Amino acid sequence: MVRWQPGAPERLQKAALELFATRGFEQTTAAEIAEAVGLTERTFFRHFSDKREALFHGQELLVRTFLDGVAAAPPSASPLEVVASALRSASAFFPDDRRPHSRLRQSVIDRNPALQERERHKLTTLATTVADALRDRGVAELAATLAAESGVTVFGISFIRWLREDEERSLGEISDEVFGELVRLAAEVPPAGT
Amino acid sequence: MVRWQPGAPERLQKAALELFATRGFEQTTAAEIAEAVGLTERTFFRHFSDKREALFHGQELLVRTFLDGVAAAPPSASPLEVVASALRSASAFFPDDRRPHSRLRQSVIDRNPALQERERHKLTTLATTVADALRDRGVAELAATLAAESGVTVFGISFIRWLREDEERSLGEISDEVFGELVRLAAEVPPAGT
Repeated sequence: MVRWQPGAPERLQKAALELFATRGFEQTTAAEIAEAVGLTERTFFRHFSDKREALFHGQELLVRTFLDGVAAAPPSASPLEVVASALRSASAFFPDDRRPHSRLRQSVIDRNPALQERERHKLTTLATTVADALRDRGVAELAATLAAESGVTVFGISFIRWLREDEERSLGEISDEVFGELVRLAAEVPPAGT
Repeated sequence: MVRWQPGAPERLQKAALELFATRGFEQTTAAEIAEAVGLTERTFFRHFSDKREALFHGQELLVRTFLDGVAAAPPSASPLEVVASALRSASAFFPDDRRPHSRLRQSVIDRNPALQERERHKLTTLATTVADALRDRGVAELAATLAAESGVTVFGISFIRWLREDEERSLGEISDEVFGELVRLAAEVPPAGT
C-alpha cells in the first residue's frame, strides 16, 4: 500500500524551484529534487509527470479561482464585467507575500524556452476554460471567446508587471489599471458603422 | 559553390504539407519531403532548421504585413485604430483562394501539440513586434502592449473562423466583425471611477 506523504507535492515543488534557480533547470534531475527533501525519485513521479510539472503545481487552483470569480458575478453582468470579477478573484490568489516566490519562479521560466511554452499553454487552457464558463452563463460564442482571451491577456500583462522589482502595488491594483486601460483604448475607437 | 534553387523553399513547403496531411507529421522525415520534390535532405536543411519549420515558412511575411498596416495608419490614429489598420493589412495577405491551403495546414497543426505550440509562439512573437512598432509611434508602454495583444487575439480568433468549413466570408469581413465585437464588449463596461 502506498503511504500518503503529507505535503509531499508542496515540498517537492519548493525544492525544485530552489534547485532550478541555483543550478539551472536543465542541470537538475527529478532524483535530485526528491533527494533534497528526503524523498525518492519514485515518489516524485507519483506526483509529477516530469520535472517541468513541479513548476506548474497549483495550475488547477488558479483555474478554480478564475471560475469562482465568474460564478460570483451577478447574472446581469456583461461578459467583460464577468471577466473583471474573475480577475479580482485571481488577484486575491496572489497576495503580496507570494511575490518573492513568484519572482523566483518567473526568473527560472525566463531562462528556458520549454518553460515559457508551458506557461503560454497554461494561459491558453485558462482562456478556454473561462470561455466555456461564460458560454454556460448564456454568453454568445464569439463574445465568450473574446472576453475570456482579453481577460487572460490582462492577467498575463498584470502578472508580469506585479513581478517587477520596482513594483509595489498589489496584483489587484495593477489588474484594475490594465483592465481599465483596455476599456479606455476601446472607447477611442468609433463604433462600427460610423 | 552552392547553386541557387529557384523556389526550393516553396516547393519543399508544399510537399511537406501534403506529406504531413496524408502520412502524419511524426511519420514524415525531412529526407522524404526533399525526395518528393527531387531535392536532397541537405538542401532541405539549407532552408529549414527542422521539418516543423517547413510549416512556418512565410511567418516573416505575415509580420511584415502587420507592420505595413501599422505604418499605413494616420498619425492621429489611436492605438487600437492602428491595430485595426494592421488587421486589414494582414487580412489582405490571406485571399480566399488561399483558404484550402490554410485549412489543410490547420488540420495538420490541430493533430500535433508541438505544432500548436509553434503556432502559439508565432502569435506571441507577432504581438511583441507589433507592440514595439506602436511604441516607436509614441504609444505608451502599457497601451502598446495591450493594443498589440488584443490585435493578435482578434487575428487568431478571426483566422480560425475563416477556416471553418461553413464559412464563406473573407478574413477581412470576419476580422472587422471580431474587432467590432471587442469594442462593443468594452463599451458595456462602465469607465473606471464610476
